[in-house]
Amino acid sequence: MQPVTLYGNIESGNCLKTLWAAKFAQAPHDWVEVDIFGGETRSDSFLALNPAGQVPVLRMADGRTLAQSNAILLYLLEGTDLIPADPFQRAVMLQWLFWEQYSHEPYIAMRRSALRFKGADEADLDPDLYAKGRRALGVMEMNLLSQSFMVGEDMTAADIALVAYTRVADEGGFDLSEFPAVNGWVRRVESALGIEHGQAAVHGDPE
Amino acid sequence: MQPVTLYGNIESGNCLKTLWAAKFAQAPHDWVEVDIFGGETRSDSFLALNPAGQVPVLRMADGRTLAQSNAILLYLLEGTDLIPADPFQRAVMLQWLFWEQYSHEPYIAMRRSALRFKGADEADLDPDLYAKGRRALGVMEMNLLSQSFMVGEDMTAADIALVAYTRVADEGGFDLSEFPAVNGWVRRVESALGIEHGQAAVHGDPE
Ligand SMILES: N[C@@H](CCC(=O)N[C@@H](CS)C(=O)NCC(=O)O)C(=O)O
Ligand SMILES: N[C@@H](CCC(=O)N[C@@H](CS)C(=O)NCC(=O)O)C(=O)O
Repeated sequence: MQPVTLYGNIESGNCLKTLWAAKFAQAPHDWVEVDIFGGETRSDSFLALNPAGQVPVLRMADGRTLAQSNAILLYLLEGTDLIPADPFQRAVMLQWLFWEQYSHEPYIAMRRSALRFKGADEADLDPDLYAKGRRALGVMEMNLLSQSFMVGEDMTAADIALVAYTRVADEGGFDLSEFPAVNGWVRRVESALGIEHGQAAVHGDPE
Repeated sequence: MQPVTLYGNIESGNCLKTLWAAKFAQAPHDWVEVDIFGGETRSDSFLALNPAGQVPVLRMADGRTLAQSNAILLYLLEGTDLIPADPFQRAVMLQWLFWEQYSHEPYIAMRRSALRFKGADEADLDPDLYAKGRRALGVMEMNLLSQSFMVGEDMTAADIALVAYTRVADEGGFDLSEFPAVNGWVRRVESALGIEHGQAAVHGDPE
């Protein structure tokens, strides 16, 4: 694979997904830290990379770019054993990747972002965000009661995507001790990725 | 491919995506209409199919199930020329599929659902829904100014996913005449799928 540049913010779960994937796949990559809180995603040079003004973005050596964390994740992991060979298993992996963006991230990452980065008061947040985020964790719990990873006994790209915000759900005011199977799964995925539990998001420098 | 059963509601864009894909791929399929407004997605028998209580759901002859419209779409279209062979093109297709679920459907389908099915008053809706939906249509317009389909000169699964709610955006109070390139693209995709413009969502019976 030609070397890629990842533009991201090291506090963002969506961005970390792509960094973990690059490391897992041993894909040659540079990391460019983007100051999303200082408005860097609104600069002309950033908007030229991604008109949607969001990180993460992957840039190929030839200049082509790719947005959306889960699309980048799949691109980087293609050819590794985190992408199931069986078409139906692959479809189930994709199901969880779409579910993450539709029914998990919008509640769990949103509350974390509001509480941890935007200084919001928990009482001012839409109570729906909490109820729906907790429901998402419940769906994961049910699924993980009978298997080790989201798609079955083997880790897939869906586990990387879902661990990104699940492991820091407490920062969004969720109580993971309510979800013991999820808690055990977080440790398994962190350990497979070489991330220290409860530690800064990446092991060592983002390089 | 073994025959599949699609559970869906014929007014729902997310469900229609999967029906159009099955027809396009000439995959043997049955359609089971689910009365989402009458609470059928909350019945025990439905929750056994999808604990998330949502359509669409694909059921295989052997009983395995798959949720999330875009995952079903990709599964059904695997092996057709709507899935690019080139890895980067495939990643760009996935980028748009994730973007659809994150930055398009939550605004455009949500407003349509509120106005058309829930009898909401436009003045009572969060103005953000309109601004963000209109911004999503603007992103599509920019992309379609220089190419015929979302990923390039050839239609892909991303066009099927995005046309589902874009073609009925007027029912959500959006004015597609503001977006001429999108308008032309809607006609092209409808015509490739054999859907009549402005007509009932499916050509003939859902069978
Ligand atoms: N669906 C997108 C979401 C990307 C996203 O929300 N990015 C945030 C950081 S987590 C961002 O760039 N925020 C800064 C901004 O919007 O200016 C993905 O999965 O990549
Ligand atoms: N992200 C899901 C969304 C599915 C969804 O929102 N389904 C709606 C119909 S469009 C539904 O089942 N609503 C009924 C309910 O929630 O009870 C997908 O793409 O399939």
